[in-house]
Amino acid sequence: MTYMPTDIEISQNAHLKPIEDVAAELGISRSDLELYGDYKAKVKLSFIEKVRNKTSGKLILVTAINPTPAGEGKTTTTVGLGQAMAKLNKKAIVALREPSLGPVMGIKGGAAGGGYAQVVPMEDINLHFTGDIHAVTSANNLLSALIDNHIHHGNELNIDVRNITWKRVMDMNDRALRNIIVGLGGKTNGFPREDGFQITVASEVMAILCLAEDISDLKNRLGKIIVGYTTGGQPVTAGDLKAEGAMALLLKDAIKPNLVQTLENTPAFMHGGPFANIAHGCSSVIATKLALKLADYVITEAGFGADLGAEKFFDIKCRYAGLSPDAAVLVATVRALKYNGGVPKNSLAEENLEALKKGIANLDKHIENIRKFKVPVLVAINRFNTDTDAELDFIINHCKDLGVDVAISEVFEKGGSGGIELAKKVCRLIETTPSGFEPLYDLNLSIKEKIGIINREIYGGAKVIYTDKAEKAIKQIEALGLDKMPICMAKTQFSLSDNPTLLGRPEGFDLTVKDLRVSAGAGFIVVYTGDIMTMPGLPKEPASGRMDIQPDGRISGLF
Amino acid sequence: MTYMPTDIEISQNAHLKPIEDVAAELGISRSDLELYGDYKAKVKLSFIEKVRNKTSGKLILVTAINPTPAGEGKTTTTVGLGQAMAKLNKKAIVALREPSLGPVMGIKGGAAGGGYAQVVPMEDINLHFTGDIHAVTSANNLLSALIDNHIHHGNELNIDVRNITWKRVMDMNDRALRNIIVGLGGKTNGFPREDGFQITVASEVMAILCLAEDISDLKNRLGKIIVGYTTGGQPVTAGDLKAEGAMALLLKDAIKPNLVQTLENTPAFMHGGPFANIAHGCSSVIATKLALKLADYVITEAGFGADLGAEKFFDIKCRYAGLSPDAAVLVATVRALKYNGGVPKNSLAEENLEALKKGIANLDKHIENIRKFKVPVLVAINRFNTDTDAELDFIINHCKDLGVDVAISEVFEKGGSGGIELAKKVCRLIETTPSGFEPLYDLNLSIKEKIGIINREIYGGAKVIYTDKAEKAIKQIEALGLDKMPICMAKTQFSLSDNPTLLGRPEGFDLTVKDLRVSAGAGFIVVYTGDIMTMPGLPKEPASGRMDIQPDGRISGLF
Repeated sequence: MTYMPTDIEISQNAHLKPIEDVAAELGISRSDLELYGDYKAKVKLSFIEKVRNKTSGKLILVTAINPTPAGEGKTTTTVGLGQAMAKLNKKAIVALREPSLGPVMGIKGGAAGGGYAQVVPMEDINLHFTGDIHAVTSANNLLSALIDNHIHHGNELNIDVRNITWKRVMDMNDRALRNIIVGLGGKTNGFPREDGFQITVASEVMAILCLAEDISDLKNRLGKIIVGYTTGGQPVTAGDLKAEGAMALLLKDAIKPNLVQTLENTPAFMHGGPFANIAHGCSSVIATKLALKLADYVITEAGFGADLGAEKFFDIKCRYAGLSPDAAVLVATVRALKYNGGVPKNSLAEENLEALKKGIANLDKHIENIRKFKVPVLVAINRFNTDTDAELDFIINHCKDLGVDVAISEVFEKGGSGGIELAKKVCRLIETTPSGFEPLYDLNLSIKEKIGIINREIYGGAKVIYTDKAEKAIKQIEALGLDKMPICMAKTQFSLSDNPTLLGRPEGFDLTVKDLRVSAGAGFIVVYTGDIMTMPGLPKEPASGRMDIQPDGRISGLF
Repeated sequence: MTYMPTDIEISQNAHLKPIEDVAAELGISRSDLELYGDYKAKVKLSFIEKVRNKTSGKLILVTAINPTPAGEGKTTTTVGLGQAMAKLNKKAIVALREPSLGPVMGIKGGAAGGGYAQVVPMEDINLHFTGDIHAVTSANNLLSALIDNHIHHGNELNIDVRNITWKRVMDMNDRALRNIIVGLGGKTNGFPREDGFQITVASEVMAILCLAEDISDLKNRLGKIIVGYTTGGQPVTAGDLKAEGAMALLLKDAIKPNLVQTLENTPAFMHGGPFANIAHGCSSVIATKLALKLADYVITEAGFGADLGAEKFFDIKCRYAGLSPDAAVLVATVRALKYNGGVPKNSLAEENLEALKKGIANLDKHIENIRKFKVPVLVAINRFNTDTDAELDFIINHCKDLGVDVAISEVFEKGGSGGIELAKKVCRLIETTPSGFEPLYDLNLSIKEKIGIINREIYGGAKVIYTDKAEKAIKQIEALGLDKMPICMAKTQFSLSDNPTLLGRPEGFDLTVKDLRVSAGAGFIVVYTGDIMTMPGLPKEPASGRMDIQPDGRISGLF
C-alpha cells in the first residue's frame, strides 16, 4: 500500500489556476466575475442573462445507496467524475453544495471531496468561503429580530408568542442553543418566549436561496415564509413584517454562483447547501442552470442516499426548475453493501460475499427507484483497498443481470485518471439511453396520497401511520390551501425505512409520520418521520482544539 | 439652497476606480491583493512584510467635541480631509472603522461618511463588506460553544455556570437576545444557565483583532481571554479551552486590511470596528501601520468625542502599537456647541451667540485635553447651512485667543474641494509644530490612580466614587495581577462627565464607577460608569422595512 497524504496536504500541494483562467475556459470574462481572493469568484447575474439562450448540456446526478455512518464518497465521486471528464477532453462542470462551518469545528471531515478528488481551496471553502452562509444567517436572524420587535412595539399583527415557528440560526455546532428562552430582563427587553437556534443550513432561507430562479423569485419566496400564527390561528408571513426586501438585499451577493476548481482545475460551482432532511439537500438552481449553459456535462449531487437525495432532487428541485436530468450515477461501496448486509462497522474490511449478497438488495432497490423517474442509471463502485476482486466481480455480474453497467472508481487515490472508466460509461449511457424524466407524483394529489406514493414506491413500505399531531397538521395545511406543494421527507438516511436499524431492503414496514411543517417560501411540505436534529453538538474533543495557524498563514489541523 | 441628493444617490453615481488601480497608486501590486468584487480588496500580510522598513508618514487623528445625539460629522470630516489632501497632491490614506450591520437595519444612517465625503461602495460596506464582522461572530461563538460543550462533557475545568462572563454575539439589533437562558431541554442539550447576546462589535474578539500586530499576537491575545471563573474563583481562559488556534484560523482573512476608496478615489483602509465605550473604538493597528508605510498623511478617527475616543486612541491604541500621532483635528459644529450651551435639539438652527459662548467651553476643554498628550491640535468646523457668519467668526476668534487655528469644512456639500482650507492648515500645523506625544498615565500606577488621572485631567471631575461591586472587582483584578493594563472607560458620550445631561464643561462633579471587567486578551480594564447597552434594539418602524432590491440588482432604502 502506498503512502496516502491527508486531504489538506493534497489540497495545499495543489497547483491551482487563477480563478480568472478557470472562468475564461468557460467563456466567462474577467468583467463578468467578482473575485474573492485569487481562487474563488462569484459570477455576476448579468452574465447569466447573456447565456440564457444557449443550449443546455447534459445533467448528471450523483446519488448513493443508503450509507454507513461514515459516508461513502459521493462528493469524492462527483468531483472525480468531473476531473475524469476533463481528462477525456469533455467540457464538464461540477455543481456542489457549499459546506457548513459548524460541523468543521466538531468532527474531522470536510465537505469538498477527498483524496485526489477535491474541490479547492478547501480551507477557504470549509471556513467562511464567499460569505453566503453568513448572509443566510443574517437574513434569517433579521426576520427573527423583526418578529420580536413587532411584538415589543405593540404586536399589531397579534402574533401568538406561543406559536412562533421561525427560529434563529447560527453556523455553529452548539447544543446549548437548541432550546432557549429569549426576551428576559423586563419591560425594555421584549416579551419572554421559548425559542431555539438551528444550524444555518437548516434555515428555510437557505432552501429558498437554492430554489430561487432570480432576485424577483427570491424576494417573492422570502415574503411567503410563515413565521408563526396569530392568536386566531392565521399564518403570519415575512411579508406581513415587511422583511422580504431587506432579506433579499442581505442575499444580493449570496445569490450569485461561486466558481472554484478541482485539484485538476476542472471548474466547480459550489453554491448553497440546504439540509437533506428538513430541506431538499441540493445545490442552487441558479448555479445548476448556469453550469448547463457553459458545459456539455454538469455533474451534481444530492444529499444522503437516493431515497432522500435523489427523490427530492427529482421531485422538488428538477420539478420547480424545469430541469430534466440525463443520467444518474448511483455510488456504492463494497463496505456499505456489506454493512447493509448486516456486517458490523469494525468488520467491513474482511471479504464477506454472503453479506454482500444480502446487502446488495439495497442497491437493487435504489436502481428500481431511479428507473421510476425514467432516468438512465449506472453504478459506480467507490473502490477501497480492502475490496476483493471476488466482491467486485459479484457486484458487476449482479448488476449486469439487471441491465445496469458498473464502473469501478478509484478517484480518491488517483484523481481523474481513476475515473476514466466511469466517465466513459456515463457518456455512453447518455448517448445510448435517452432520459424520459418525470416526477414521481402529481402535485394536485392530497398530502396523504403523495406521502403514500413516496413510501410505497421509493421506500418500499406498507402503510403510513399518522400521529394525532400529524393529522392535525395536515388539516391545517389543507385549510390554508398550501397542500398542493411537493413533499420534503425528513427521514433517517441509514435505512430505506424510517427505522435506522432496518438495513438492506426492508419490506412490509409501516412509515410513521409524526408531524408536518410548511416551508411556504421554499415551496414544500416537510414531513417528519422521526426526530430530526437541526442543531448538532460538539464532541468531547472538538476538532477545533487541533486547529492552528502559523505566523506565515500556514494552516494545520483542518482535516 | 441647492438640491442635495441623498447619500446613496451620491454613492451610486460615483465614478469608482477598479480597486487594483487604487492599490497600484499606493505601490500595491495586483498580486499583493485579494479582491472582493471589483471595488474592495484585502491586502495580503506578505505585502506588509515587504514595506515594514519604509519610513512612516504622518498620523492625524480626527476627533470631536461631545456630540449631539445625531453625531457631528466626524467620519465625514475624516473622509473629506483625505479627499482634500489628494486635491493638494498630497499622498493621503483614510483609515476608518468598518460599520456594523445591525444598526443599518434599525435607524437610517450609514457609517461611511456622508454627502460628497463618503467611502464607497457604501452599500457593500454597510452590509457584509468583506466578511470581517461575520468572522468575529464565528470566532466569538465558537468560544461560547466550547464553553458549554466543555461543561456538558464533564466540566473538567470546573467552570462555574453562575460565573461565565463570555457572551455570545450577533451582528443584529435584537433586544430579545439581551437576556436569555440557554441549555434547556434536558440531559442531551447541556446545562441550563443565564446568558445573553451582545452585538458583534462589542466582542472582545473585535478589540483584539484591532490591537493585534500580527497572527502570533492575535493568537496570543485570543488565548488570554477570560471566559469566566471556576467554582474556586480562578479565571478560565480561551487557552484553557484550546480555542485560540481555531479562533485565529477563523480570523485569518479578517486580519488582512480592507482597501476601498472615497468618492474622489482617495484610498481608504476600513478595518475593524470595536465599540467606543466597552472597547477602544479605533480601527485596526495593522491597517494604521500599513497606511503609514504607504502614504505621507494617514487620517484616522476614533469613536465618540475626544474624552472617550481620543483618550483611548492615545492611551490604548498608540501606546500598544508604539504609534506617535502628529496632529489632532477636533471636529465641532455650531449646532453641537449651541447644544452644549443649553439650546434644545429643535432650536439649533437659530443663531444664538449667547448659547455658543456658553457651549464653547466644551471645545476649550477638549483642546486642553489633547494638549495634555502633547499633540498639536486644530479645530475643524463642519459647516451647516444654518450657521451664521457671526457664529463662525466668534469661534474663530475665540480659538485664536487660545492659539488654535480653525478651519471651516464644507466637505459634506463640496467633497474634497470643501476641505482645502482644512487640509492646508493640517499640513502647516504638522510642519510647524512637532508632536511630543506621550500617554496620559503610567501603566504601573494602581487602577484607582489611573482612573483618578483620567477623571481629573480629561473629564474635569472631582472625586471618583466606587460602588461596593467596583471595589470588589478592583481587588479581584489586582489579585489576578492584571491591574497593570490601560483603562478603557465606558461612559456616556454626551457629556464630559458620567451624567449625559451635564453639557458644556461641567466641573466639580463626582464620577461613579459601578463595575470593572478585564478584557485580558485585548489588554485593558473596562471601567463602567453607567449602564452600557451592548445589544441595541430596533425602532417601531425599522429601516429594513423600506429596503428593497430590484431584479437588476438596484438597491433602494439603504439610507
